[in-house]
Amino acid sequence: VESVPDIHNVQPFLEAASNTWIQVSGLHDTDKLTSIWEFFDLHPLIREDIVNTAQRPKVEFYDNCVFFVMRMLNYSDQELTAEQISIVLGNDFVLCFQETGEDYFNPIVKRLSTKDARIRKQGTDYLTYALIDTVVDYYFNIINHLADEIEQVEDELLEESDTEQLNQIHKLRREIIFFRKSIWPLRDAVNATIRDETTFIEDNTKIYLRDVYDHMIQLIDNIEHYRDMMLGMHDMYMSQVSNRMNEVMKVLTIIATIFIPLTFIAGIYGMNFNPENSPYNMPELSWYWGYPASLGFMTIIALIMIYYFKRKGWF
Amino acid sequence: VESVPDIHNVQPFLEAASNTWIQVSGLHDTDKLTSIWEFFDLHPLIREDIVNTAQRPKVEFYDNCVFFVMRMLNYSDQELTAEQISIVLGNDFVLCFQETGEDYFNPIVKRLSTKDARIRKQGTDYLTYALIDTVVDYYFNIINHLADEIEQVEDELLEESDTEQLNQIHKLRREIIFFRKSIWPLRDAVNATIRDETTFIEDNTKIYLRDVYDHMIQLIDNIEHYRDMMLGMHDMYMSQVSNRMNEVMKVLTIIATIFIPLTFIAGIYGMNFNPENSPYNMPELSWYWGYPASLGFMTIIALIMIYYFKRKGWF
Amino acid sequence: VESVPDIHNVQPFLEAASNTWIQVSGLHDTDKLTSIWEFFDLHPLIREDIVNTAQRPKVEFYDNCVFFVMRMLNYSDQELTAEQISIVLGNDFVLCFQETGEDYFNPIVKRLSTKDARIRKQGTDYLTYALIDTVVDYYFNIINHLADEIEQVEDELLEESDTEQLNQIHKLRREIIFFRKSIWPLRDAVNATIRDETTFIEDNTKIYLRDVYDHMIQLIDNIEHYRDMMLGMHDMYMSQVSNRMNEVMKVLTIIATIFIPLTFIAGIYGMNFNPENSPYNMPELSWYWGYPASLGFMTIIALIMIYYFKRKGWF
Amino acid sequence: VESVPDIHNVQPFLEAASNTWIQVSGLHDTDKLTSIWEFFDLHPLIREDIVNTAQRPKVEFYDNCVFFVMRMLNYSDQELTAEQISIVLGNDFVLCFQETGEDYFNPIVKRLSTKDARIRKQGTDYLTYALIDTVVDYYFNIINHLADEIEQVEDELLEESDTEQLNQIHKLRREIIFFRKSIWPLRDAVNATIRDETTFIEDNTKIYLRDVYDHMIQLIDNIEHYRDMMLGMHDMYMSQVSNRMNEVMKVLTIIATIFIPLTFIAGIYGMNFNPENSPYNMPELSWYWGYPASLGFMTIIALIMIYYFKRKGWF
Amino acid sequence: VESVPDIHNVQPFLEAASNTWIQVSGLHDTDKLTSIWEFFDLHPLIREDIVNTAQRPKVEFYDNCVFFVMRMLNYSDQELTAEQISIVLGNDFVLCFQETGEDYFNPIVKRLSTKDARIRKQGTDYLTYALIDTVVDYYFNIINHLADEIEQVEDELLEESDTEQLNQIHKLRREIIFFRKSIWPLRDAVNATIRDETTFIEDNTKIYLRDVYDHMIQLIDNIEHYRDMMLGMHDMYMSQVSNRMNEVMKVLTIIATIFIPLTFIAGIYGMNFNPENSPYNMPELSWYWGYPASLGFMTIIALIMIYYFKRKGWF
Repeated sequence: VESVPDIHNVQPFLEAASNTWIQVSGLHDTDKLTSIWEFFDLHPLIREDIVNTAQRPKVEFYDNCVFFVMRMLNYSDQELTAEQISIVLGNDFVLCFQETGEDYFNPIVKRLSTKDARIRKQGTDYLTYALIDTVVDYYFNIINHLADEIEQVEDELLEESDTEQLNQIHKLRREIIFFRKSIWPLRDAVNATIRDETTFIEDNTKIYLRDVYDHMIQLIDNIEHYRDMMLGMHDMYMSQVSNRMNEVMKVLTIIATIFIPLTFIAGIYGMNFNPENSPYNMPELSWYWGYPASLGFMTIIALIMIYYFKRKGWF
Repeated sequence: VESVPDIHNVQPFLEAASNTWIQVSGLHDTDKLTSIWEFFDLHPLIREDIVNTAQRPKVEFYDNCVFFVMRMLNYSDQELTAEQISIVLGNDFVLCFQETGEDYFNPIVKRLSTKDARIRKQGTDYLTYALIDTVVDYYFNIINHLADEIEQVEDELLEESDTEQLNQIHKLRREIIFFRKSIWPLRDAVNATIRDETTFIEDNTKIYLRDVYDHMIQLIDNIEHYRDMMLGMHDMYMSQVSNRMNEVMKVLTIIATIFIPLTFIAGIYGMNFNPENSPYNMPELSWYWGYPASLGFMTIIALIMIYYFKRKGWF
Repeated sequence: VESVPDIHNVQPFLEAASNTWIQVSGLHDTDKLTSIWEFFDLHPLIREDIVNTAQRPKVEFYDNCVFFVMRMLNYSDQELTAEQISIVLGNDFVLCFQETGEDYFNPIVKRLSTKDARIRKQGTDYLTYALIDTVVDYYFNIINHLADEIEQVEDELLEESDTEQLNQIHKLRREIIFFRKSIWPLRDAVNATIRDETTFIEDNTKIYLRDVYDHMIQLIDNIEHYRDMMLGMHDMYMSQVSNRMNEVMKVLTIIATIFIPLTFIAGIYGMNFNPENSPYNMPELSWYWGYPASLGFMTIIALIMIYYFKRKGWF
Repeated sequence: VESVPDIHNVQPFLEAASNTWIQVSGLHDTDKLTSIWEFFDLHPLIREDIVNTAQRPKVEFYDNCVFFVMRMLNYSDQELTAEQISIVLGNDFVLCFQETGEDYFNPIVKRLSTKDARIRKQGTDYLTYALIDTVVDYYFNIINHLADEIEQVEDELLEESDTEQLNQIHKLRREIIFFRKSIWPLRDAVNATIRDETTFIEDNTKIYLRDVYDHMIQLIDNIEHYRDMMLGMHDMYMSQVSNRMNEVMKVLTIIATIFIPLTFIAGIYGMNFNPENSPYNMPELSWYWGYPASLGFMTIIALIMIYYFKRKGWF
Repeated sequence: VESVPDIHNVQPFLEAASNTWIQVSGLHDTDKLTSIWEFFDLHPLIREDIVNTAQRPKVEFYDNCVFFVMRMLNYSDQELTAEQISIVLGNDFVLCFQETGEDYFNPIVKRLSTKDARIRKQGTDYLTYALIDTVVDYYFNIINHLADEIEQVEDELLEESDTEQLNQIHKLRREIIFFRKSIWPLRDAVNATIRDETTFIEDNTKIYLRDVYDHMIQLIDNIEHYRDMMLGMHDMYMSQVSNRMNEVMKVLTIIATIFIPLTFIAGIYGMNFNPENSPYNMPELSWYWGYPASLGFMTIIALIMIYYFKRKGWF
């Protein structure tokens, strides 16, 4: 078992090594690609799917190989991005194609470098399992990151809820939908691989794949859980905005309904009816206790209003 | 293998050619239609389904042919429209019926014209695959168009949200529902074709149909994804309208609750109680510091209000 | 083959005719009913189901007959109403029971009257198919009617949205739910009939039933489509009401926040502080430019407010 | 066949009668219970389920008996309550346990008392059918009661929508959820009984159970129908509250926006600028047409406002 | 049969006892753990799953054992917390791993201590059943606790609805989602165990597991029931907030629309137009009945407004 993690000039290795792992980063050098897949005699549809990097995660069984498509998820600049990982498992080779040069599979390279590592003693199917497992491990990173963000937004939401949180909730919902879209089909693909009866994957490797499958189910459980929670959080956001508006309305209503009648009374006694022309023209203005009485009357009205709002439980 | 892309006077070709493709555009010339399907001996139910262009996408297996119904989707004047494509696959013929004269299948005609093209060497089942594949490729155009529009609306939504966006969201939702209605049944039809055991479609063509099936699944995944996103966008729109209203309410409440009490005080000192009749009638009006004191009192009230709103986090 | 579309005095026909169709309208004349089903030896449960006209659409296979229950839908006075149609298919007879005297099946009677019609040459199973097909054709009328109403409400909604539209949306939702309840079980019943292995229905009639089944699926697709659309329309209605309220709030807020401070200033200079008692008591009132200055000050405040609202995009 | 509807001292009957029906009301007299189930040799799990009256409806097949759990639903004081009915069907006995002494099964007792009744000639399996059928008949009463209440609330909703209706809708939703929880599992239990191959239930009794199963399906259809309707009604309630609020806002806005500017103008001419000190200080006050002109100006402003609201369609 | 409930120094027992139950609390002493699972020869994946305490509930069948993962739920400080319980069932041993030292399984220890207890006479599979049953019994405690809280919040909701209830509803929704996530997979695991054909679990123990399975179904029914209810309660909360806001708006609108016009009239007669310069300048001020007439006019306007609101049903 020998590992060849670099990308170019693999031709000699191909012919020498018995179990070969070729990691191809960057899918634009069509000549190289052609030479590789001509050597391994890949079906035209596989070639097409490797280059067209918007495939759905899936597994396909061909006569001379098994073809996996997965989506590696990553956060770059707080944005969840996806990259297609295509794996071709043959009888004595594993091809792994990715678009960028990110070394996601470094841990495996390291394990392969240490002597006596279990992975060195196993076949190409175990290596494939290790690759898939690495991708799924990345998913757990993502979901932990999501969980942290959700918890943070939820904590903030209990204190205040402004447009900032709304945008956060919206972003998280989008990411959860995006994540879901990547892992649902992979679960089916892993399941199909376990149930498959071709000889590319041995039975004791399938036990490990079953473990990956369990992890997928767990991820999906979590993602559905978070989806439900996001719905609940959006509902809560809306309820809080409504509550807030209710609060604002109450302040306005209390102030307005107390002072509008008082202002009206002040307006009455601000009228300029001529008391000289008639005894009925605003005689209150000349009363001895006129001013204090009017102030007292206003106070009584205000107190009645306040009592009314208190009883309604408005403050 | 010979291609006959024009519509009329096919009778001679029918008798001469071995593998025939007849493309019929326009379904109103009943005489022509009758002559064609009498020649190929089509079942009455097929004839009915071809003319009645509101069929659900489906596949039906008859003794002498396989009958596909699909819906070609297209944007005309920013409106998503559908047109029924009916394909009849016999042992050595393919009939393709459409209502309008749009040359959707031009690429296939071109491929057929080039010598040594793969499609020329394959049977009528491969041609049928090519026709279905072309329809599904159109779906990808549609979904990309939809994705662009959704992204644009979403970007606009982060800045402002008026009735324009609401109508856009509503239109997109309708289009997604409409799109969904066209592709869900086609997926089942393609799947039924793959699993079918009649001899009209050979096994190595079925590999290609499996690829079409994968594309269908991918489309459905995307459409469900966009549907979820539209729901999220509508929720966000509603939240933003609520936020906006909350904002408007706050401005009104702040202005009103600051000035209404002040106006009330000004109203008090605008009353005309006669100070000559009684020492209790508005003695403030004659105080030396009366006016500045009242202005100061108003300022204090305003400051208290502002402090109160600040602490409530209203601005 | 002889058709007997009238209801009473069928006894002689029963004994004479080989293939008999009896159409029974009105289920209150228990004597007649008893005589009919005694003659054909119907199971007690069938008898019960025919009279109890709130049955769910279904098919039941008995030793001597097949029993269908369907619901005929109709608009009477703009209200969607349902009527139970029970069909009993025996080896050489078809019984059809309905509550009212509506002649839904007139077209079949006409076809039976024309000599050499296909329906005359076929057995009772084809007649049963024709009856079911007629009911399903009625469903298409209903759904077209629904589609028209939905489109009309949607068009109105883009222009204005008042309580009228809300009630319309509510009515349409109810009708869709009602329609759905009638056709979902019938689909299962038709499917069960197709898959059934008794000898009451021949294989070439089953091809026609498969066509009915396709129509049922199409109806269900449409009904689900309309259901989704109604949900979208209700959401849109709610959004529009919110938008409207937002609009109303803005008008109120703009007017109030511009004039409330101005009114306050006018109130200030309406106070009656005595300028004779103190140089600080409202000296502005005696200034040479006092009045124009105060008007100018108010104008400036109003302009600032208007600028602020403009910048906020409120008008 | 002999019926024993009373509860105590059944021991002698047990030994004498061939087909025995024991109706046990009240589950607190543990001695009696123990004596009964020791006599019939019931499995410990059955004993536990009978006494623990919060079981889910189900059917369980034991070696010597079939064990049914059902929930009898009833309205007491306008509240939907449930009571567990446990039925044990053995080869020649039927045990029926219930908590309260309500005589739900009186009709069966009556039928058993009449000579020559069909139920007397049938075995214990038919009696079990009759018991289940009675419970399901009660469900129809409940659903009719629900339907009446729903229709009533819906009618009220078209006229007005206050907290009363909201509480009604909430109560109905709860009852529907509660009802659903009782009948969904019973459907599965009845279905399992029909498909079961033990010899406790004879084939011609299964035809009757199939009829019960149809009724269950019909009930579930109805309950889902009502659930959809309740959702629609809640949506409608919310829309109406929004409409109402919109209406209230409009009234406030119209009155406020018409009178606030007018009050401002009145406020202007209520200012006390001294005309003697300056020709610019409120010369309008001394104009010959000053007062009528100001009133006319106000009228014009009010008319403009009214015209603006009319054009906006606010009233 | 001998029970060994303490954690350390089990080595001697292991070799002596025939049927052994080892309860391991705390998963940090890796040396102990290693010695235990080396002794019982556990598969590496089991070892990993035991230590990694965020597993999904599941059952896995290995050659030498059956491996269960469950989640014990508990309330600590009003917070619903979960703890992983891992059970390994071998031919003559049961290992039970948990993180904390909580003695959840005390009742079983007690039952094992009493002589002649049924549990002492049964094999390790019955003990495993007893452990699972204990966990499920805890679930019933949790759900009863949830039910109490839900009922309390619902009762409060009928009286008032403030942020307190909103937070409660949100918390309950989260707990229900959390609970659901724990019990759904366990149901599948128990079901898989019942259907399993390995010899680790005997048939008469499976009858008891079927009972546990019934309890799981009942729990899930309840949890879905409560989930529906929480949705209904949130809807009701929102409706009540809307109603409340409507109420607040009405109070504001009534007070404002009554007094704003009156204040305007008072403002009119507060204007200072000079009656000496013109007979048209506010002659009303000098009328004999001027003041009473203006007050009367205001009263009439107020009464008209009140009548209008009454007729609208606003109070």
